[in-house]
Amino acid sequence: MITDLSELGEFGFIRSIADRGVIRPEGVILSVGDDAAVFRAHPPGGSAPHSVTLLTTDMLCEGVHFLRNRIPPLDLGYKCLAVNLSDMAAMGAHPREAFVSLALPPDLPVDYLEALYQGMDELARRFEVNILGGDTTSSLRDLIINIALTGTAGESEILRRDKARIGDRIFLTGICGESRAGLELLLSGANDNAYPSLRAAHVRPRPQIAEGQFLAASGVRCALDVSDGLSSDLRHIARASGVGIRIDGAALPASPELTQYCRETEKDLTSFQLAGGEDYCLCGAVSPGLAEKTKRRFADRFGYPLAFIGEVTAEPGIVLRLTKDDFIPLPSTGWDHFSSNSHG
Amino acid sequence: MITDLSELGEFGFIRSIADRGVIRPEGVILSVGDDAAVFRAHPPGGSAPHSVTLLTTDMLCEGVHFLRNRIPPLDLGYKCLAVNLSDMAAMGAHPREAFVSLALPPDLPVDYLEALYQGMDELARRFEVNILGGDTTSSLRDLIINIALTGTAGESEILRRDKARIGDRIFLTGICGESRAGLELLLSGANDNAYPSLRAAHVRPRPQIAEGQFLAASGVRCALDVSDGLSSDLRHIARASGVGIRIDGAALPASPELTQYCRETEKDLTSFQLAGGEDYCLCGAVSPGLAEKTKRRFADRFGYPLAFIGEVTAEPGIVLRLTKDDFIPLPSTGWDHFSSNSHG
Repeated sequence: MITDLSELGEFGFIRSIADRGVIRPEGVILSVGDDAAVFRAHPPGGSAPHSVTLLTTDMLCEGVHFLRNRIPPLDLGYKCLAVNLSDMAAMGAHPREAFVSLALPPDLPVDYLEALYQGMDELARRFEVNILGGDTTSSLRDLIINIALTGTAGESEILRRDKARIGDRIFLTGICGESRAGLELLLSGANDNAYPSLRAAHVRPRPQIAEGQFLAASGVRCALDVSDGLSSDLRHIARASGVGIRIDGAALPASPELTQYCRETEKDLTSFQLAGGEDYCLCGAVSPGLAEKTKRRFADRFGYPLAFIGEVTAEPGIVLRLTKDDFIPLPSTGWDHFSSNSHG
Repeated sequence: MITDLSELGEFGFIRSIADRGVIRPEGVILSVGDDAAVFRAHPPGGSAPHSVTLLTTDMLCEGVHFLRNRIPPLDLGYKCLAVNLSDMAAMGAHPREAFVSLALPPDLPVDYLEALYQGMDELARRFEVNILGGDTTSSLRDLIINIALTGTAGESEILRRDKARIGDRIFLTGICGESRAGLELLLSGANDNAYPSLRAAHVRPRPQIAEGQFLAASGVRCALDVSDGLSSDLRHIARASGVGIRIDGAALPASPELTQYCRETEKDLTSFQLAGGEDYCLCGAVSPGLAEKTKRRFADRFGYPLAFIGEVTAEPGIVLRLTKDDFIPLPSTGWDHFSSNSHG
């Protein structure tokens, strides 16, 4: 049995992926084993005439984005691909082909790599993504994982950050803050049975591919995935679109578990909702004429609500309405800083 | 003036690329600044009906692939993109869009990044490649660079490793061993004026994009780029194609500089030619019927010769002919080992 990388050889792992990673063989001409992968960028046959290609890439570094001894390799593999899939969801695109570059420290066991790959493979199969190779090299010390993911979309149906228009309503497809609560639970070493849904939100975020495609097909043109924290990500939309955004604090969705967690730990729920991070739901802007119909059809299709949390305004900046007549600007340093300065 | 990364901010550098990296704007719908880049995978208008997409990715790690204090950032940037472009050359493809992921140690000066980008940019412009973004993150200690590069090719005109056929002649588009001699010169700290062509072969390898496209259009179907050393790379072709290869040692090309360097340093020229590494010329197989015509047209087009260095055989393995009747098998451990065991 091969148990370490020096035995497996530099290319052994990526070759073993090649045998298992191609789950849609019809568009693949060459996978791992040549100078480049070769594939049809667009689905054969049914592709729209104005179909375009998308590419997103994310690099995760040990010690910066994850601690190797705090996240099981299965979850790490899952999360690396989930992050990239979420970017495709945020564009309303169909994910297609993934390329995994790994820099491996010399002591990494083959079992670890197997688990890492299994985590990726689970998501790849669920979303019909081919893993077509990448690169495997050694690193001096740290495990580095870079995934490049291609996708396709109709050119006129892309969800962009720069398409928010004054008067649009701001929507959110999930609950922000659960992932951060889950991270706190994991790091605190609390009883594993407490708040399973909050832990799952952090460890196994669900890329909202179907939701992104649904919104794009419904005529929505502005969205992103909430990865840095809602407050920061709203700013990305506002800046790119040259508008301001007013958020209604009372409209921010929360689950019973998140509310309970904040009450029990005496934490500020609004901070979790505005500055959670790694939420991976979608947030964007929809015209008033489309809003109610989209909301109704979204609930019918997915069985959970599309929340309307605010409006696009002419005045630049992000403003939070705490109560009916109490508005406070969110500074560009983010809600956390504001919170500790003003409420600390 | 911004001089370090903490001032520039995590996304400052990749944003600055966005403003300068798009040199073919006509096919680009979104570059840096959204969840994914969006582009037309194939050139508008002139694209062949059976055009396919290619993707190659290479990760370079500090301490493993380069020493930060031994290679200027300008050359490192050049080389990172050159390595990926060479993979496209090896497929006979047209390179199109590049995505650069960087993990940056905290002490890296902004000037360093500027120079790194300039080195990439020089090649990107020469080969009309758009740099459409990527990812920038911090790393604990080491500089990590991953480039993903897309390309296009006619489906029936791809240069593959598995298309060598018994009786084909083995060709080589350049001189193997110069890069290794150049590396030795750099590491030895020898007089900077000695052997400039050998140093250039190591520091500024020229991706043979035009040569790859020419060979593909000429009907050649089998090639790769010589990156690991000719002996190892021939084995890739032999394995993928299920054939053997006989190399004629006397036919391996050498330049006067390489010959002179080996004589002066009392080194074995054949070792350099067979196990140099980082040569980035193309090696492949061409049918006997096409060989002479391709050779003539190649010399007319590029002004330097296509060398025929051997033949594809039915017997598995790589065999080297030293003199007319003296054949030795090259073991799979590579020529260097063989050399030190038998001739050491």
